[in-house]
Amino acid sequence: MINETMVQLGQVRSVIRDLFEFGKKRAAEIGEENVFDFSLGNPNVPAPEDVNRTFIELIENNSDIYLHGYTSAQGDANTRAAIADDLNRRFGTSFRADNLYMTCGAAASLKICLEALYTPGDEVITFTPFFPEYRVFVETTGAKLVAVQTDPDTFQIDFDKLEEAINERTKALIVNSPNNPSGVVFREESIARLAKVLEEKQERYGHAIYLITDEPYRELVYDDDVVVPYVTKYYRNALVCYSYSKSLSMPGERIGYILVPDEVEDSKTLYAAVAGAGRALGYVCAPSLAQHVIEKCVGQVSDLSVYRKNRDLLYNALTEFGYTCVHPDGAFYLFVKSLEEDAKAFSDRARDFELLLVPADSFGTPGYVRIAYCVTTEQIEKSLPAFRALAEAYKK
Amino acid sequence: MINETMVQLGQVRSVIRDLFEFGKKRAAEIGEENVFDFSLGNPNVPAPEDVNRTFIELIENNSDIYLHGYTSAQGDANTRAAIADDLNRRFGTSFRADNLYMTCGAAASLKICLEALYTPGDEVITFTPFFPEYRVFVETTGAKLVAVQTDPDTFQIDFDKLEEAINERTKALIVNSPNNPSGVVFREESIARLAKVLEEKQERYGHAIYLITDEPYRELVYDDDVVVPYVTKYYRNALVCYSYSKSLSMPGERIGYILVPDEVEDSKTLYAAVAGAGRALGYVCAPSLAQHVIEKCVGQVSDLSVYRKNRDLLYNALTEFGYTCVHPDGAFYLFVKSLEEDAKAFSDRARDFELLLVPADSFGTPGYVRIAYCVTTEQIEKSLPAFRALAEAYKK
Repeated sequence: MINETMVQLGQVRSVIRDLFEFGKKRAAEIGEENVFDFSLGNPNVPAPEDVNRTFIELIENNSDIYLHGYTSAQGDANTRAAIADDLNRRFGTSFRADNLYMTCGAAASLKICLEALYTPGDEVITFTPFFPEYRVFVETTGAKLVAVQTDPDTFQIDFDKLEEAINERTKALIVNSPNNPSGVVFREESIARLAKVLEEKQERYGHAIYLITDEPYRELVYDDDVVVPYVTKYYRNALVCYSYSKSLSMPGERIGYILVPDEVEDSKTLYAAVAGAGRALGYVCAPSLAQHVIEKCVGQVSDLSVYRKNRDLLYNALTEFGYTCVHPDGAFYLFVKSLEEDAKAFSDRARDFELLLVPADSFGTPGYVRIAYCVTTEQIEKSLPAFRALAEAYKK
Repeated sequence: MINETMVQLGQVRSVIRDLFEFGKKRAAEIGEENVFDFSLGNPNVPAPEDVNRTFIELIENNSDIYLHGYTSAQGDANTRAAIADDLNRRFGTSFRADNLYMTCGAAASLKICLEALYTPGDEVITFTPFFPEYRVFVETTGAKLVAVQTDPDTFQIDFDKLEEAINERTKALIVNSPNNPSGVVFREESIARLAKVLEEKQERYGHAIYLITDEPYRELVYDDDVVVPYVTKYYRNALVCYSYSKSLSMPGERIGYILVPDEVEDSKTLYAAVAGAGRALGYVCAPSLAQHVIEKCVGQVSDLSVYRKNRDLLYNALTEFGYTCVHPDGAFYLFVKSLEEDAKAFSDRARDFELLLVPADSFGTPGYVRIAYCVTTEQIEKSLPAFRALAEAYKK
């Protein structure tokens, strides 16, 4: 008599939560500083100073109805204009406020897009490894998730596999670059080729195939030569799902947007469907005070230098110790090959060394663990002997 | 190729928005002070002073990861404990933090509950007049909305009609008291009788019938003898959907909760389904800073005296002018009988007197207009001659 799918989604013991609970218990036994928890993707760098200053200045200088009242469903017009201006400045685009629909973060953006596009029989493609909630969002919308394996050595797109996977039922492709969990970025040549493939397939099947980019990690790249292409410049039917969770270190505030460019087929109708889906899903408007903060702070980015330092420290040490890991261009994860076939068994064994690593089978790439390095550099430094000892244990 | 239901939900010209746009245009022509806009339910009283003080104190004294980081999906444990304590103090209940699931406001609460409960063939009952989004939430979940007419003179429950409407497919009943748009409160004897009917029907059909209360207006009652019964004390299978939108005048912050009491049938399973539905719908957690504010400010209520003053002024004047209107015990709306059969035509004619009134056909009770009195008392005072002239115009 209750929705069984929802019960299961709510009951499933999350590996990440299990690790978190274990970590808390273990910390009580041996001290927090001796447990190396790499399980959570909660940014540990502070928001830019301007963010909290702006919160306070807004509160001190505005009426409550402005601060805390409803904005229009699609979001405050000034906030959307400020975001459009910022995108245009950075990417040479020409978006307007009316191309943007403010949301309660990237998960909401994705779910709303999927619901807006859905018609029965739909298939939605994504590349492995992928954020496990994609499966939840796609399947509970009614569509089928098709996970296309990437090159196993680089996690870059395998275009033959992609072409095989696209058929007349393909409605959309979700791309997440920089990627959670691998940190891989799809460079310009990949995005250009991807656009070409999608255009050919659109022509062949006679309908739009939407490229949905999930880009909460867009700004989290650490090398000058790494550029994250802005997909709308390469492909007409592209929708951008963005969140300020990582760029402004405020994941709890639930603030992001959906971008529906004018160039998208039936752009106005699709924007209406986005608004309708937001309404149907119970999203009245995005949080108002956070919207006003974004208006003032758009374009700022948290100090990401600690992530880069952490990445280099951990990547260099782990590869030296014999671990296999694609060099991550961005995000704040290392995706490391398990030292035995069963990643869960490997994660369990890592616990003996006080290392909490997420076995990543649900990311569609069995045999790997995810290491979130959005932690203190000190934690990484102190954990290195444990990583070394874990690798040694497998050589015996 | 796009979800046609969502397109329609997004495209439908909202009467409220039409009125709002008209009002803006008209204000530019004749001055804002000469247009009497009663269309919007945006609270105009400020939040309690403590709310903004708490925002600032929290920001000044806490780490960003506490302020803006993810909370757990069901909400911050301290916030949930504070809310449970407050409910127990006010209503003599014995809820725990684990009975609460924090949400992005009442719309999210309702949608999540409906999704958690849904199985194919479901019918969900509500009483007329009802907030039009109920239809959207129920129908897009897959269930059928059954609108049960109330007593046409009092908008109180017609128990014969209710009994006729309940059948083996009835999964839930949504109750909204104080009611948007009528302001009517269901008193203790009604809720007790309602509980008895539902218990009999549960017995008869052999399954739970959930009573979902949507109560963003709970605290907005203006007379000492008006008590809004706490439904969980009268009926076992009751779920409470709450929002701080009106009690703390912060509708834009999107913060509320779902209460799943231990007494509910399969309480733990249902709580899991709520968590699963929140996850499936893209709600990662409720906004974090707002959660922390609620922890500190729970139990406070905005100064509602202006609403009472407005209600009395407007109700007394309108009934004196010959309008028919149920005396509203709570919320901040008057639900006034149209002076001609077609409420839309009446609303159009009211515009000639610079009065913006929402024709309420979509509330399931044709022939009425909704007047939101969450405006300045001055606006009400200045509008009275226009209301009188409108009534006179119909007498000619």
